[in-house]
Amino acid sequence: MTITLLTDYGPHDEFVGVCHGVIRKILPDASIVDVTHGISRHDVRHGAISLRNALPYLPVGVHVAIVDPQVGTERRAVAVRCEDGRVLVGPDNGVLSLAWERAGGVAEAFDVTRSQHRLEPVSATFHGRDVFVPVAAHLAAGAELREAGQPLGIDELALLELPGPIVDEDGATAHALLVDGYGNVSLDLTHQHLMELGLTLGERVEIAGPGLSSEAVVVQTFADVAPGEMLLYEDAWGAVAVAVNRGDAAKALGSTRDSEVRIKRR
Amino acid sequence: MTITLLTDYGPHDEFVGVCHGVIRKILPDASIVDVTHGISRHDVRHGAISLRNALPYLPVGVHVAIVDPQVGTERRAVAVRCEDGRVLVGPDNGVLSLAWERAGGVAEAFDVTRSQHRLEPVSATFHGRDVFVPVAAHLAAGAELREAGQPLGIDELALLELPGPIVDEDGATAHALLVDGYGNVSLDLTHQHLMELGLTLGERVEIAGPGLSSEAVVVQTFADVAPGEMLLYEDAWGAVAVAVNRGDAAKALGSTRDSEVRIKRR
Amino acid sequence: MTITLLTDYGPHDEFVGVCHGVIRKILPDASIVDVTHGISRHDVRHGAISLRNALPYLPVGVHVAIVDPQVGTERRAVAVRCEDGRVLVGPDNGVLSLAWERAGGVAEAFDVTRSQHRLEPVSATFHGRDVFVPVAAHLAAGAELREAGQPLGIDELALLELPGPIVDEDGATAHALLVDGYGNVSLDLTHQHLMELGLTLGERVEIAGPGLSSEAVVVQTFADVAPGEMLLYEDAWGAVAVAVNRGDAAKALGSTRDSEVRIKRR
Repeated sequence: MTITLLTDYGPHDEFVGVCHGVIRKILPDASIVDVTHGISRHDVRHGAISLRNALPYLPVGVHVAIVDPQVGTERRAVAVRCEDGRVLVGPDNGVLSLAWERAGGVAEAFDVTRSQHRLEPVSATFHGRDVFVPVAAHLAAGAELREAGQPLGIDELALLELPGPIVDEDGATAHALLVDGYGNVSLDLTHQHLMELGLTLGERVEIAGPGLSSEAVVVQTFADVAPGEMLLYEDAWGAVAVAVNRGDAAKALGSTRDSEVRIKRR
Repeated sequence: MTITLLTDYGPHDEFVGVCHGVIRKILPDASIVDVTHGISRHDVRHGAISLRNALPYLPVGVHVAIVDPQVGTERRAVAVRCEDGRVLVGPDNGVLSLAWERAGGVAEAFDVTRSQHRLEPVSATFHGRDVFVPVAAHLAAGAELREAGQPLGIDELALLELPGPIVDEDGATAHALLVDGYGNVSLDLTHQHLMELGLTLGERVEIAGPGLSSEAVVVQTFADVAPGEMLLYEDAWGAVAVAVNRGDAAKALGSTRDSEVRIKRR
Repeated sequence: MTITLLTDYGPHDEFVGVCHGVIRKILPDASIVDVTHGISRHDVRHGAISLRNALPYLPVGVHVAIVDPQVGTERRAVAVRCEDGRVLVGPDNGVLSLAWERAGGVAEAFDVTRSQHRLEPVSATFHGRDVFVPVAAHLAAGAELREAGQPLGIDELALLELPGPIVDEDGATAHALLVDGYGNVSLDLTHQHLMELGLTLGERVEIAGPGLSSEAVVVQTFADVAPGEMLLYEDAWGAVAVAVNRGDAAKALGSTRDSEVRIKRR
């Protein structure tokens, strides 16, 4: 069974490599997919959205997500089996919650904080190495989920709250959910919202972020506008997003994660 | 068959992880080599040169290269079999063209823009996930190349034009083809050019970039000069390059990709 | 046998990908763990400490470490078998020396500078590709260590010197051994030193770096103090470290690798 890893460990330290080592000591032939280790430090929501977006493209397996500002405190570590057969492992802080919705909901949940699969002694600050990854590796190797920890009520699991957009007569007030490495800004709007607003391909809109505002065109892809121009489009995950062709929309608008973005019909 | 990936997706987002997931859903035991995902955004030539340089060190396989500023427009997606048996997959914008030269030339080419192997619905902005990688995975899994798309004339394929150096009596005017993460600047000069200029080991030259100029010595490796000194050497890919021992030559010269670098005998 | 790689090649260039390619040409089914490629450029000690820390979590295998400012000069390339069966491959500049201590000491050592396994022609600047990695791949594929090079006296191997802390009545003068991507500063102090100083959980200390000084609390994990507060804790590798909850201790103290950090009882 494939193990996938998503963390905020970054590309510079040995944290990810050590997690791979721990997996291969338990399951030498493991198939590992590094979904990303570039989640913004401690940004639980960023991790949750990335995992949800990526999930349909990953083989059914054991999916670890670690964005864990409360590591070493009383927050629970959990392993969850979803209705579609996927198993999710991570801290119980909401980072898994959008993924299990995408996977049909939770079938059963276990508290693995004191799992028999932990590496002893468990450090206070690196539960990826000592708890989450060894639990995931044993599960991928065939261990029973119910032997990985204590049963946990599904309604005890932490959930994540997302902001919602407000659509009015003039346009919509949305939020920057994600900013990718190109500076493309993904909003909490869908194609459906654009249809409500009567915005179809080719239409011009005004987009205002915390910094400045700019004119943009509703199009399908970057190169549909000239280099340097702003566009509103449906991104590869089905969200409405703002980009600048060959530029950086987040910089242009002054947007960071969570900031309001106003779309106004012209 | 090994699948290799080279993109400008960067180390921070989930784009690469999703491509791995797509491969493993099609071919669970795939052997994947990430050549690099650090190509400068949209820099087709950077991708083309990196792939050409790396190719001889990669097992014969299916080699995907994605630097694709025109994604979602009418530009073709292609799969090409080289004379040496390698298969190249990517946008038809020249990013593959230096690699197929290195691989003995093109034996046959196919337009895979509407390949049966695509993931439906195809997004307008992430053809790595939806077109290039699934096509490559099916080919690596044994699918016939001719069933991956429509036959394409070899002379219809896009080529890449590279600048050329000018060698004169005093020295040479070359171009910065690549700048690596250390700030080493690879030029469009070879050992052959240095011989024409009569430059042998130990000789001193004047190197001028867009920013400043500096004295340098023709040597074999970094530590042949003192820390902070500039050197002219043959790099690991057979190109003549400029470096500063323990420093950053690109910064010292003010060179960026494509800028002119003048080498002058003293 | 697993091959692990640790280098200062960074996440942007094709150096790491080419090393993977070289391995897979020699050993197509190789199991490869990238420990990290984010070692600070040319920082041999950073590489040595990272490898030592990671080693117990890696399967017994062939462990390559490349931080090699003297590449292409007369410095030796070595392969070393440790008492616990691990094989280490790298430049003979001390980068392997902390790891072999951790692995029970050196059982036998070989000079592989002119190994029969090298890729010809050997470049002057990329011995990862041309020497270390092909030697490691052949060893992982079953080649005899004694056929990889010339026997070398164990006492000829380069060692690494680490600074040591000074503990006095008022506190301790330690050194920043490592700074991770979060800005956490790992010191050359252990739990034992804290006990000598009578510092137990909950105690307040004064921590002074080259920049400023700050109050901190001795705790177990980040979230034991409020966001923005400084803490002194035992990190996941058993070293005493300084962090700022959700912040950057290296920045707060002005510490960089090797700088002195003074811990003072209040």
